[in-house]
Amino acid sequence: MKKNKDKMIYGRHPVLEALQSGTPIDKLLLQQGVRGDFERDIRHWSKRLNIPLQVAPKERLNRITSGNHQGIIGYLSLLTYQRLEDVLPLIYERSESPLLVLLDGVTDVRNFGAIARSAECCGAHALVIPKKGAAQINAEALKTSAGALNVIPVCREKSLIKAIESLQLAGVRVMASSLAAREPLDQLDLMGPVALVVGAEGDGVSRAVLQAVDQTFVIPQKGQTDSFNVSVASGIMLYEVMRQRG
Amino acid sequence: MKKNKDKMIYGRHPVLEALQSGTPIDKLLLQQGVRGDFERDIRHWSKRLNIPLQVAPKERLNRITSGNHQGIIGYLSLLTYQRLEDVLPLIYERSESPLLVLLDGVTDVRNFGAIARSAECCGAHALVIPKKGAAQINAEALKTSAGALNVIPVCREKSLIKAIESLQLAGVRVMASSLAAREPLDQLDLMGPVALVVGAEGDGVSRAVLQAVDQTFVIPQKGQTDSFNVSVASGIMLYEVMRQRG
Repeated sequence: MKKNKDKMIYGRHPVLEALQSGTPIDKLLLQQGVRGDFERDIRHWSKRLNIPLQVAPKERLNRITSGNHQGIIGYLSLLTYQRLEDVLPLIYERSESPLLVLLDGVTDVRNFGAIARSAECCGAHALVIPKKGAAQINAEALKTSAGALNVIPVCREKSLIKAIESLQLAGVRVMASSLAAREPLDQLDLMGPVALVVGAEGDGVSRAVLQAVDQTFVIPQKGQTDSFNVSVASGIMLYEVMRQRG
Repeated sequence: MKKNKDKMIYGRHPVLEALQSGTPIDKLLLQQGVRGDFERDIRHWSKRLNIPLQVAPKERLNRITSGNHQGIIGYLSLLTYQRLEDVLPLIYERSESPLLVLLDGVTDVRNFGAIARSAECCGAHALVIPKKGAAQINAEALKTSAGALNVIPVCREKSLIKAIESLQLAGVRVMASSLAAREPLDQLDLMGPVALVVGAEGDGVSRAVLQAVDQTFVIPQKGQTDSFNVSVASGIMLYEVMRQRG
């Protein structure tokens, strides 16, 4: 459940106006049973702007706000999402070799913040997260990121698979860490345009994503422990890119 | 304040017996005003076994236990500390090149656990922590370490400076990360016996420790963010050792 300190807007007119004006919204909560033009409008904007839409009973919306919500609540986002298709050309224009981090199922807010911090430290150009199954970008995420989330662009994409395909079309090599892979991280050629996919703690990168990427690799390890924490693993990958690029 | 779920013993006889028998104890809480032979005994064991001793008013001990504590409470440790002087010869006997991690002022329990996890993953031989100013090794630390703390030896030393001197006498090169250093991590020679010193988030490695070490280095970084999170930084250093050693 969202905390009260997260800012929200509610009411049909304010929410639609916010959507139309491009106010960044993290999530929409639509009351069960709402039908007609308004439902269509909300679904249209949710789809167009990649904003997760959840349908919930009236009682839940009533618990969240005592205001006259008219069946719709929108949670304001703490940051403005960017579009991968806008971010990518800008990197090439600056004659830099793209470095992106894709998060597949990383839902822990602190891990997400720590990954953003490492990514920014290592000069990554953007984070790419899916519309569904991403960590909430709340105050704790921003704090853990040590301000990095205010600097590094975050692209929220409808589907990670589609984002991977777009990256590949743009000449970016997409590589995913997997404990089952053979190629060790330090043997990869990371000089060219690269996107690194980081999986969820425990489950790792999903099968569909593993099939879509160009290359899988493993961070070598020696001990008996389960593997690195996901934010540490991300830091190591990003360091290796930085090391190779000098 | 300690949580109730942390195991403790209290009463003069049980605590003294635990100390004499070598039961691992994390911290001793002595009631203000306790004097005489018993106080002397407790101070003797605290010094001899490097167990932090805190003096507190009777009311505080009463709040912690409703039992008859007789002015003394001991918190049982979740792991058995080892001695650096015992651990070091064992590494050499196995013909391995020592790799140790020294923690200077890392008091955050989750960071400590994550560092232990990375250290074990990278084949480090031991963690070295000071008697004062170390993170409490509680259930959360064990959980964050993903079991690593049950595997990797932890040495609690009276003074980190003395530990560094012992390591240097044993032929171990002690290296500390510092944002003010010039030498980049990947330019270090990490093939020989190495101890890496990790400092506290924010303050970094203390001045006294920086003066005692053989070498300081910096993890290169590109972005505007403050620097890596301490557990990520530790993971990167350990990875670089593993990478060089192949």
